[in-house]
Amino acid sequence: MEELRGRALGNLRVRVVIPKDREFKRVAAGELEATEAVEKPESNAERVWYYTKRFLLGVPIPTAMAENERISKFKALALLSSDAISSVAFATEAILINLAAAGSGNLGITLPISLVILFLLLVVATSYRQTIPAYPNGGGSYTVARENLGVLPGLVAAAALMIDYVLNVAVCIAAGVHNIISFFPSLNSYIVPMAIALIVIMMILNLRGLRESGTIFAFPTYFFIVSALLLIIVGLIKAYLFRHQPIIGAFTPAVQSIEPLTIIIVLRAFSTGCTAMTGVEAISNATPVFREPQTRNAAITLTWMACILGVLFLGITLLAMTYGIQANAASNPTVVAQIAMHVYEGPWAFLVPLFLLAVLGILTLSAETSFAGFPRLTALLAQDRFLPTQFSFRGDRLAFSVGIVVLAACACLLILGFGGNTDALINLFAVGVFIAFTLSQAGMVVHWWHLRGQQRGWQRSIIINGVGACTTAIVTLVVATMKFLDGAWIVVLLIPILVVTFVGIRRHYLRFERESTIDLPIHPRDIHHRLIVPIDKLNRASVQSLAYARSVSPHVTAVHIVMDTDKASTLREDWQRWQKRLGDEEETHLLIIDSPYRSLIRPLLAYIDTIHERHPQDTVSIVLPEFVVAHWWQHFLHNQTALRLKAALLFRPGIVVINLPQHLS
Amino acid sequence: MEELRGRALGNLRVRVVIPKDREFKRVAAGELEATEAVEKPESNAERVWYYTKRFLLGVPIPTAMAENERISKFKALALLSSDAISSVAFATEAILINLAAAGSGNLGITLPISLVILFLLLVVATSYRQTIPAYPNGGGSYTVARENLGVLPGLVAAAALMIDYVLNVAVCIAAGVHNIISFFPSLNSYIVPMAIALIVIMMILNLRGLRESGTIFAFPTYFFIVSALLLIIVGLIKAYLFRHQPIIGAFTPAVQSIEPLTIIIVLRAFSTGCTAMTGVEAISNATPVFREPQTRNAAITLTWMACILGVLFLGITLLAMTYGIQANAASNPTVVAQIAMHVYEGPWAFLVPLFLLAVLGILTLSAETSFAGFPRLTALLAQDRFLPTQFSFRGDRLAFSVGIVVLAACACLLILGFGGNTDALINLFAVGVFIAFTLSQAGMVVHWWHLRGQQRGWQRSIIINGVGACTTAIVTLVVATMKFLDGAWIVVLLIPILVVTFVGIRRHYLRFERESTIDLPIHPRDIHHRLIVPIDKLNRASVQSLAYARSVSPHVTAVHIVMDTDKASTLREDWQRWQKRLGDEEETHLLIIDSPYRSLIRPLLAYIDTIHERHPQDTVSIVLPEFVVAHWWQHFLHNQTALRLKAALLFRPGIVVINLPQHLS
Repeated sequence: MEELRGRALGNLRVRVVIPKDREFKRVAAGELEATEAVEKPESNAERVWYYTKRFLLGVPIPTAMAENERISKFKALALLSSDAISSVAFATEAILINLAAAGSGNLGITLPISLVILFLLLVVATSYRQTIPAYPNGGGSYTVARENLGVLPGLVAAAALMIDYVLNVAVCIAAGVHNIISFFPSLNSYIVPMAIALIVIMMILNLRGLRESGTIFAFPTYFFIVSALLLIIVGLIKAYLFRHQPIIGAFTPAVQSIEPLTIIIVLRAFSTGCTAMTGVEAISNATPVFREPQTRNAAITLTWMACILGVLFLGITLLAMTYGIQANAASNPTVVAQIAMHVYEGPWAFLVPLFLLAVLGILTLSAETSFAGFPRLTALLAQDRFLPTQFSFRGDRLAFSVGIVVLAACACLLILGFGGNTDALINLFAVGVFIAFTLSQAGMVVHWWHLRGQQRGWQRSIIINGVGACTTAIVTLVVATMKFLDGAWIVVLLIPILVVTFVGIRRHYLRFERESTIDLPIHPRDIHHRLIVPIDKLNRASVQSLAYARSVSPHVTAVHIVMDTDKASTLREDWQRWQKRLGDEEETHLLIIDSPYRSLIRPLLAYIDTIHERHPQDTVSIVLPEFVVAHWWQHFLHNQTALRLKAALLFRPGIVVINLPQHLS
Repeated sequence: MEELRGRALGNLRVRVVIPKDREFKRVAAGELEATEAVEKPESNAERVWYYTKRFLLGVPIPTAMAENERISKFKALALLSSDAISSVAFATEAILINLAAAGSGNLGITLPISLVILFLLLVVATSYRQTIPAYPNGGGSYTVARENLGVLPGLVAAAALMIDYVLNVAVCIAAGVHNIISFFPSLNSYIVPMAIALIVIMMILNLRGLRESGTIFAFPTYFFIVSALLLIIVGLIKAYLFRHQPIIGAFTPAVQSIEPLTIIIVLRAFSTGCTAMTGVEAISNATPVFREPQTRNAAITLTWMACILGVLFLGITLLAMTYGIQANAASNPTVVAQIAMHVYEGPWAFLVPLFLLAVLGILTLSAETSFAGFPRLTALLAQDRFLPTQFSFRGDRLAFSVGIVVLAACACLLILGFGGNTDALINLFAVGVFIAFTLSQAGMVVHWWHLRGQQRGWQRSIIINGVGACTTAIVTLVVATMKFLDGAWIVVLLIPILVVTFVGIRRHYLRFERESTIDLPIHPRDIHHRLIVPIDKLNRASVQSLAYARSVSPHVTAVHIVMDTDKASTLREDWQRWQKRLGDEEETHLLIIDSPYRSLIRPLLAYIDTIHERHPQDTVSIVLPEFVVAHWWQHFLHNQTALRLKAALLFRPGIVVINLPQHLS
């Protein structure tokens, strides 16, 4: 036996070194490396799929090429702050639309609300600056909350983040499409298809594996920052320096108050305005991508981002108030589009589409941050067994394909469900963001408490994060309460459902890994075979099946279920003649089972079960032919009994199924 | 070994006689009979399916109870002539609607056309009387044409018949629904759903296995015959004896001539009128069900049927002319409904719904003859290998379930496709009927020619069938030409498609039976095993898989595809430790394959193929675990690698797949 094994191994080695065989390279004894040749398609259908995939996704990238590039502050600011800065495009509108109920006379309240949000931004940004040095490897809310507060808060943060990533894609793409439509109102009925097309294109690009560090990605952010600053400066100069009369309500009729300006309305406006802060955490999550000195560079970039966000948000809000802009229910045209149309008039009107293009650019890039973040988060969860393993597989181009596809699918469903209405989607948005903020800051408080005495200045840090945690917790409550009926209930309901799912999945995996078994002895010598070969008639295929069974063990029973008595008697005669021709050595017992109700599967299953019960110590294997057909339609011609039997046996523990492929030579 | 086999058989016998085991009865040595106990469901899902099926279809019937009842002429007339007699309900209308184009003035041509059709009926019926003594076991068009003219004409007849059966269901049910709607015009928009509901109910009843010999089936036919005769007699007496002024065009406005009465219009009217003759062949197909003297009884019944059909058709046509009835494009109300409304007036109006009920009854019964004929024909074709074997399986209730379901599905599609419009469907109808008539009669001519000299009166028979064949051939040409653009092209196109399909299916089956093979030696001693066990990590399940493989042969290679290098080195260490613990006897070689493009299936397939190519004389078997999950959603949690590998191996000849069920204990 030793010699046989040696030969087998020897053969293998000989095979590997033959130069014609380009499918494998020998790496070491007992170790091969597959080359790209193994990926080549074989059948026509496979070829179509292969080349379509290649065309859409590009050539596969080996694992070894996974990038670990470090980037400069300039680039990092562009890449990591698009999410936060893009909020400017819809946050002011979100406030205005909530105030509209109180009539256009009260829109002056917009400014104080915006100032409160700016203060909140200051608190959160300062708080997140603490996370950067504490988690130089990236401190996402899931990581920080899980490490410091425990698994459950970590999962709540993860669920909130997942929902936010999906909402971010839906909101950004919907808002981007609305801005384009503000300029081309005739496209108004194509909002949903346009948004879905954009999401699908982004999905394909991300499956190709976008190299986010590409300089091209810095462009939309700076283009938007410059365009928005120009708009703000020109707009304010026009209004205050040249005293152009602001044209209030030129695009929308003045709205009469339908309810008094209550504290509720102010809080609701504030709640939606808080969406301006989505994405503030991005930089602290991504500390590892910064050049040395990492933490310092990350902290500086965070400060810059908060400043830019603050200036733009305040500027757009001021312009909206100055020009008396009111939000339209269907975002047609959007608030920023209205501002641009007011500011750039006459010969300067050509700047309007340029500005709207910049808005679309930053919104798309913001959606792209979700396409980067969501698959990473789900891969992390999958590695921790909270999600199906598939989420942690890298595709051909190193991207986490399953996460990308799931994100795109969920965002498309949201767009469809809400008819591409940005304002409706925004109502769901802020809750999740602030839950993640709160858990992350609270986690940091615990973090500093654990380090008390070991690290200088822990008291200062704990106070900053404590203030951050309390503030964001209060905002979370306000947002959840104010927007509950408008859609936040969906998020509030979805988070526990997701958490329960995560826990259930992990429990299943752990149980399966610990307890699953095949019901066979673990030593070959303890296995006593007993084989059952269902046969229809005595032909070449059934003789070969029987030979295979006999080569495993002499305990073989051929079973024929009678569907047709003539066929059964023919089989019996054929069988006796055939057995006589064979030697005693190959004699096999034939069992004929009459099936008065003409069912084939049931009597066979009952017989298999009986044998299994009678001989629990034996390993029962069923030998079944599997038809290998050349064309799909030929499947209909073979009555699939083997397939149905296999499906039935799938749910029966302890029965081994041996498939012999039967085909046309 | 002899002794081992003896024991295995012995055990089996012991099991069978244990009284607790009610699943099998021992019939003879090596022969068991399954009892109803094996049919009992096991899982909840199965239980739901089982009891739903029981509720809809009733308890299963053993094969032994297949009926062979003989019936009297009185019953046979009712059962076998409903198809022909029911044509009365739509044939006159079909003629009138074609003449309408020539204006209401020319409707007098209806009578001569009807007389020609009556003459045709005489010829065909006489011709079919010849078939009865020649084919006492039932001479369907397929049988007669195939036996006498060859396989191809037989298949053409079969295809034409199949199409006719489907059309008959669609036309009868649509016409029946239209008659009901003539009385309840408010249901007009529910024609299609009502027709489909009726077809589904008939399908379920037929799957239950209708005992057509039931006396209840005689009722609708006689009820209709009596009602129709009453209508004709009352109508004629009213019109001619009491000289009631016929009210021409009371229901429909007089139609102006839009084209002159050309020969084309007359031929078109004649072509649709020929649908009156569908079903004339039913009796000669069913000779075996008659009591002795079979052929005499069958011939007498055929004559009676032709007479009744002739009288009713002529009567209805006369009434339509007398009362100046015109056909409405949407059959609302139908011609027979209009006649009834004219004849039964005042206090006698209650007879109208009764008559319409009789029409619905006979039409439904006529559709039922399709439900009896189509599955029998397809079962016959399946037995001859021209259709998938499934068509020849008898279901729980002895019915040919697949044929019944296919018929119902096709009829529903037709109803949907034509919006339930009887007149449009009728245009497709007559071609197939007359093709089958022609082939059947021509077959009979050949039949008599073969018997020349052996049988007295063969000359007379050959002349009768020759005249029949020529007449029906001419009618076929006329109908196909006249109705080609109106829909007959569908049938003309479909028949060759069906025939080619039949031939293709048979060719595939014969080739598969003759040539299919499993690529294994036919003697156990010639099989040299070589087993490959893909493993992910070293756990209980993989150890058991390896043990199974080793119990078959010592030539076992465990293969690990590297997706994660840490996991691979852990496996390598675990493996070495485990191999040391085991004796030399169980040593197994582990091969590690790096997959730089992270694909799992492809490198494994490439390796399996290489082994298979290197050792073509060996039998390569792959041992794969199959996850047995308790809930369907758990399928998503196991990454289905085994399943994908199996799907890929399905198209590779010569590789055996051994599935070990892995499950939670």
